[in-house]
Amino acid sequence: MSFRRLLRKCQIRNQLLRECLAECLGVYVLILFGCGSVAQVTTTQEKKGQYLSINLGFALGVTFGVFVSRGVSVSQLLCVLGRHPWKKLPFYIFFQVLGAFLAAATVALQYYVHGYKCFCMYDVTLADAIQAFSGGELTVTGPTATAGIFSTFPADYLSVWGGVVDQVIGTAALLLGVLAIGDQKNSSIPDGLQPVLVGALVLVIGTSMGSNSGYAINPARDIGPRLFTYIAGWGVEVFRAGSWWWWVPIVAPCVGALLGTLIYELMIEAHHPASPSELQTSCVEATEGKPGLELEGVKSD
Amino acid sequence: MSFRRLLRKCQIRNQLLRECLAECLGVYVLILFGCGSVAQVTTTQEKKGQYLSINLGFALGVTFGVFVSRGVSVSQLLCVLGRHPWKKLPFYIFFQVLGAFLAAATVALQYYVHGYKCFCMYDVTLADAIQAFSGGELTVTGPTATAGIFSTFPADYLSVWGGVVDQVIGTAALLLGVLAIGDQKNSSIPDGLQPVLVGALVLVIGTSMGSNSGYAINPARDIGPRLFTYIAGWGVEVFRAGSWWWWVPIVAPCVGALLGTLIYELMIEAHHPASPSELQTSCVEATEGKPGLELEGVKSD
Amino acid sequence: MSFRRLLRKCQIRNQLLRECLAECLGVYVLILFGCGSVAQVTTTQEKKGQYLSINLGFALGVTFGVFVSRGVSVSQLLCVLGRHPWKKLPFYIFFQVLGAFLAAATVALQYYVHGYKCFCMYDVTLADAIQAFSGGELTVTGPTATAGIFSTFPADYLSVWGGVVDQVIGTAALLLGVLAIGDQKNSSIPDGLQPVLVGALVLVIGTSMGSNSGYAINPARDIGPRLFTYIAGWGVEVFRAGSWWWWVPIVAPCVGALLGTLIYELMIEAHHPASPSELQTSCVEATEGKPGLELEGVKSD
Amino acid sequence: MSFRRLLRKCQIRNQLLRECLAECLGVYVLILFGCGSVAQVTTTQEKKGQYLSINLGFALGVTFGVFVSRGVSVSQLLCVLGRHPWKKLPFYIFFQVLGAFLAAATVALQYYVHGYKCFCMYDVTLADAIQAFSGGELTVTGPTATAGIFSTFPADYLSVWGGVVDQVIGTAALLLGVLAIGDQKNSSIPDGLQPVLVGALVLVIGTSMGSNSGYAINPARDIGPRLFTYIAGWGVEVFRAGSWWWWVPIVAPCVGALLGTLIYELMIEAHHPASPSELQTSCVEATEGKPGLELEGVKSD
Repeated sequence: MSFRRLLRKCQIRNQLLRECLAECLGVYVLILFGCGSVAQVTTTQEKKGQYLSINLGFALGVTFGVFVSRGVSVSQLLCVLGRHPWKKLPFYIFFQVLGAFLAAATVALQYYVHGYKCFCMYDVTLADAIQAFSGGELTVTGPTATAGIFSTFPADYLSVWGGVVDQVIGTAALLLGVLAIGDQKNSSIPDGLQPVLVGALVLVIGTSMGSNSGYAINPARDIGPRLFTYIAGWGVEVFRAGSWWWWVPIVAPCVGALLGTLIYELMIEAHHPASPSELQTSCVEATEGKPGLELEGVKSD
Repeated sequence: MSFRRLLRKCQIRNQLLRECLAECLGVYVLILFGCGSVAQVTTTQEKKGQYLSINLGFALGVTFGVFVSRGVSVSQLLCVLGRHPWKKLPFYIFFQVLGAFLAAATVALQYYVHGYKCFCMYDVTLADAIQAFSGGELTVTGPTATAGIFSTFPADYLSVWGGVVDQVIGTAALLLGVLAIGDQKNSSIPDGLQPVLVGALVLVIGTSMGSNSGYAINPARDIGPRLFTYIAGWGVEVFRAGSWWWWVPIVAPCVGALLGTLIYELMIEAHHPASPSELQTSCVEATEGKPGLELEGVKSD
Repeated sequence: MSFRRLLRKCQIRNQLLRECLAECLGVYVLILFGCGSVAQVTTTQEKKGQYLSINLGFALGVTFGVFVSRGVSVSQLLCVLGRHPWKKLPFYIFFQVLGAFLAAATVALQYYVHGYKCFCMYDVTLADAIQAFSGGELTVTGPTATAGIFSTFPADYLSVWGGVVDQVIGTAALLLGVLAIGDQKNSSIPDGLQPVLVGALVLVIGTSMGSNSGYAINPARDIGPRLFTYIAGWGVEVFRAGSWWWWVPIVAPCVGALLGTLIYELMIEAHHPASPSELQTSCVEATEGKPGLELEGVKSD
Repeated sequence: MSFRRLLRKCQIRNQLLRECLAECLGVYVLILFGCGSVAQVTTTQEKKGQYLSINLGFALGVTFGVFVSRGVSVSQLLCVLGRHPWKKLPFYIFFQVLGAFLAAATVALQYYVHGYKCFCMYDVTLADAIQAFSGGELTVTGPTATAGIFSTFPADYLSVWGGVVDQVIGTAALLLGVLAIGDQKNSSIPDGLQPVLVGALVLVIGTSMGSNSGYAINPARDIGPRLFTYIAGWGVEVFRAGSWWWWVPIVAPCVGALLGTLIYELMIEAHHPASPSELQTSCVEATEGKPGLELEGVKSD
């Protein structure tokens, strides 16, 4: 009991801080499994996994990320869209990027340790799959490039505007699906299975829209690990590559999320016949935070 | 609230138009994920996905297509079979083909942009995976053929009648499974999970009947994207290829759907013992539209 | 309504015949998807699917086979074990083998048509993937062997007794899992999802015990298609191959099913504390047929 | 009825022995499917399965292991953490290792039989996939190494401390996910589907953390089969390989499980607002054994 009583002592009663910790851990799990899968496939040269393993890694990463902090993978999009009060936004963003950064650091701890030498007194040799694969050189492009383990880069044939289109379509498709899954008048999916279906949605986006620019479809997923690689030895090239590609997975998903929401609202949700009680409660809902997965829609204040 | 009130203004109260919008968006999602997966596997030459990714793409495409517009992937078959009033049929067909056409256009926007040059004032260069793969030539057959990304074509060894048999069997298997999933006396599957199982059914049809002629098993899935390729630069060859193959995925699925329904009705459903209440309501049901997934069977008026 | 009234006329009230039709259709669906997947992978030389597709084909084949005729994939094992009255057994076996035979004929219709020439007046050319792959010769062994599409054959290194051990272990594992899934005191799985889990069980048996002799783990699955290949042109070699292998997938699964049941009963189910009401009803249950999936156990009369 | 009455006679009323039998059978199923998949992929040289099949084998092995003995795959971790009374621990460990040992022996019976010759009077020849693959030599390292079928070994580039880090992170991720799935305030997953999600968790750990040292993430999973290979002909090399690697998958998972639990408790569970009734019952719960999957958390006495 002493351990449990100790835990009680640590209890944080501030709602915002609790949410931020959950967001941080949720994104951490997503990136740990997602980028970990890319690291495994890349460093074993497809001997222990292929592109489908990467798709599964991000899909189940999202599923368990949501299970760890119900709503995180969604809220990181929805908060941009105004579903949460705007003043909470900087906190969410900070903790999400922090979670992604820490997860990238954990993946590097498993697959690459030269970056950690600075923290150590003496020259430890741990695992070094990345070093073994790349021959000691940390590159962003070329046949032994390893920066793509952590953040996304466009294919050679892709222009920046092509990448913007690609990311906008990908995130719009994500939002379309997420809103359909959460639309109680349409789907009636058991609440506990919604994260599994969101994972399946990310899986199919990965099999159908992954080859152009790596389906970031989420700002925190991309910038957190990119910051890590910048610090850990890949250098400024991680920002410069692909004609300064780095801003695309931050800006385009926001546009895409708005677009997908608009399409779903205009084509499906706006036409649900409203029940009388709903007309009343919808006003209340818009000003209050609701518990649960909060997939029901996006309201601007 | 202003956004939500604006949405209310857009509310369409006409039931048929609402259904048509839903059908359109459902087929759109199906084709976006399905054909997108083929595009990814084709243009990366199986580096980012293999045939199983395509199977998953269409399977989850169907799942989320149904989630977006509950019943669409089924009704697009059932309406042909007389489940819906005949006068609604032309509207459904038009909006389904429109959804498939628009989705093909979206996939092309992600993977191929030369087709969009005509709409632009100046010569933009966006993504162009298809151009990079095919070396600039849009062909329907041969090693760098790209028309197969959008619509189905028969294998070299397949005669037209062989293709008809293949499509009839495939669609009959689909209907067998769909009717079994929706048969409340047999399966008792939670309502919210039926789209997932319909997706799994399309997956297994893809792994077992995909190599002869690409399992269209659905008229709108095939003709919509085929029309797009005809316009976007592949030309009349998309209709001429495979001894004028194009009509097979339109006609054969209708025959197959009838056959599969007949088999299930005659071998399983006809023999369910009828409860007294059911004998009464079945008359009523036949003349009314029912809400929900409407997988329970097919009634001719 | 006329169609539905016509169906009513066809209603079969004989319980045994109804069950037999369901068994027949259930095994038909299993073999159609399972052997179809082998045909696709074999004739495309792994271009459109790999071994995992075959595993998925049989797994989802079992799932939808059970959905089509709830309990079929299980009862075809349980009837051997005395769960059903012994006098029903020959009927079940006949209709299961018939279903498997017809499904093999359907797969051949999709992938191979020379076998159908005898039924036709003139020389039709339909699909002929098998002919295109094998160069016109129907062989049971060698690099272009095609008999393995329909029935199982042992690997070169496997002796007959090794195959018996392999099939006994595989079927025992199947029964262990099936009894665990259906054990209401242990699992509490929603009834509608049990077929999905039985499918997952067949999937994992396929990934872990498929390479020695092709996991028939079911008599009807193997002998029905083997009879078809015997008639359709592969000849007596389908029985002679592998030192007269054909009897192993018939006899060994029966032994394995008994063994698996015994292990589960002795290690888990025998030790469930019995509730008073259960002690009474268990006597009644043993003499009556129960509706539903009937996975609860195996009783000898 | 005689068989069932006989079973009743065998009923074990001792709770601990019943649990031990269940643990044994649960781990048996896990290793039978997991190591069986490795054996299949290794001996067929990836012709009948790839790395993803191995991931699926262990994932579904865990799922059905839990279904067979609800809670086993979890309790084998939790008992180390003090969730179960400490005096039960040696019994659990013994029966878990026994189950893993017996499963390894079963896999060897399917894929390798020279080790069984000693038990036989005369020189039987059964299956011998391992012999056929390795050319008769049982090696622990090198291109035809077969010891890796049964227990884990580190990659060439991995130091012992690197392996410790890898296993600690992997098991921490497992516990994070397992606690999230079982946290009733967070997830509300239907009880019968928790084993499926634990399986999915093991799948994603396999795709993202499997290449460094084979994700044992569980002491019994590794030492049982290792003991078998030691006896069955691979010799002391199975302990010596990788700089005496064998102790890492025993010690590191215990550390990792503690770490993962701590992270989840501190970041998520400690901050759940407690209901008044819960404050009372939590004291009771800590001293009593609870039925069910027991995923709710870890309490130190």
